[in-house]
Amino acid sequence: RRGEMAKSTQLIDNEVFRAYATYAAVVLLKMMLMSTITAYFRVTRKAFVNPEDVASLGKGESAKKYLRTDSDVERVRRGHLNDLENIVPFVGIGLLYALSSPELSTALLHFRIFTGARILHTFAYLIPLPQPSRVLSWAVGYSVTLSMAYKVLKTAWLL
Amino acid sequence: RRGEMAKSTQLIDNEVFRAYATYAAVVLLKMMLMSTITAYFRVTRKAFVNPEDVASLGKGESAKKYLRTDSDVERVRRGHLNDLENIVPFVGIGLLYALSSPELSTALLHFRIFTGARILHTFAYLIPLPQPSRVLSWAVGYSVTLSMAYKVLKTAWLL
Amino acid sequence: RRGEMAKSTQLIDNEVFRAYATYAAVVLLKMMLMSTITAYFRVTRKAFVNPEDVASLGKGESAKKYLRTDSDVERVRRGHLNDLENIVPFVGIGLLYALSSPELSTALLHFRIFTGARILHTFAYLIPLPQPSRVLSWAVGYSVTLSMAYKVLKTAWLL
Repeated sequence: RRGEMAKSTQLIDNEVFRAYATYAAVVLLKMMLMSTITAYFRVTRKAFVNPEDVASLGKGESAKKYLRTDSDVERVRRGHLNDLENIVPFVGIGLLYALSSPELSTALLHFRIFTGARILHTFAYLIPLPQPSRVLSWAVGYSVTLSMAYKVLKTAWLL
Repeated sequence: RRGEMAKSTQLIDNEVFRAYATYAAVVLLKMMLMSTITAYFRVTRKAFVNPEDVASLGKGESAKKYLRTDSDVERVRRGHLNDLENIVPFVGIGLLYALSSPELSTALLHFRIFTGARILHTFAYLIPLPQPSRVLSWAVGYSVTLSMAYKVLKTAWLL
Repeated sequence: RRGEMAKSTQLIDNEVFRAYATYAAVVLLKMMLMSTITAYFRVTRKAFVNPEDVASLGKGESAKKYLRTDSDVERVRRGHLNDLENIVPFVGIGLLYALSSPELSTALLHFRIFTGARILHTFAYLIPLPQPSRVLSWAVGYSVTLSMAYKVLKTAWLL
């Protein structure tokens, strides 16, 4: 009976998996924050895309002037899409990596560098910082995911 | 030997994990449906983006008039991207949440509210329903994912 | 103690899970490759979107001419987004499928067809190949994911 009860908790009892769960949650929450920042800029810049979103701002033609693109809104949206393109592979490959029995210290190094690089990437994109800060923070996160993928393929390889 | 045979099935034997698997599959299928709706509108509205897609609709210049944007197609595409931005965090954080030993009833409540909210969001976006139906259904789904992330971080925290 | 040590490795010792890990890593790496191809085309076509990206290409107005869209860049970006829309459901549903105790041969068939279809889809999009090669390779991958979702829902169903 103990074995049965332990079933659902055993992965979360593993330290590498706990570290993965922590950092995966953090970077996914960081990605979710981009939705809120986009909404904030849409409201403060009065730049919307759907007619139903501006219905309360005026009647007929007077509301249509708010159906427009804004450079700050578009910048946040590009940052959000870049997060999707990079955080999705990290979360997917990172899960497999956490299950491939890496050393805890090595795993923490991967997770911490990736998370730090993506937070830096967001600041570099939104402030914006001069290049090459954005491209370098992107490349660091990308390399960490490649390194985890190498470990996964070395451990699991069954084609 | 029983232990060995049970390996692959034990997670799926756990009720919380089975609930997660069911709802994760449902929302991912709902997201996949957006591809088909986009394709349907592209064909019925004759609004394409790639030259090779309109080659069968006419020769040379006569086909180029179908390389255009259509407001219905763009609306479905925005709904699809919003799904990616919200369903990806749900699937990722939801998996970790399902492994953090929540009560089955609490887990079902989270999964059901999220799934209902995202289905409502799709109707609100595609019909479209007047605001604030879309923004509220988005906020409900977003809050459910935040609540699951809180449980994950409380259980797994290892930074 | 053996049980404890085995915790983190047991999933990766399962053959179906190892096959899943291999193919999921391969398609996620393929998706990541799209970022690099986009960057390659942005640099060679001199077509950028952020002012800070062209700062090194000239001063003031002379650099602004590189803030433009390029049809090759946009094509790669559409391929990348299509990967997100299709590879995310494969990775999510595929994980649940791998945990639903399918036959190894059946699982390998699903993973191999999906991976082959998405690689073909990328070539069909980027070369580009005449239709219906792109739409068919998309439909094959989509169908594989639907087939896996059916098995997941049949095994896990707990609504």
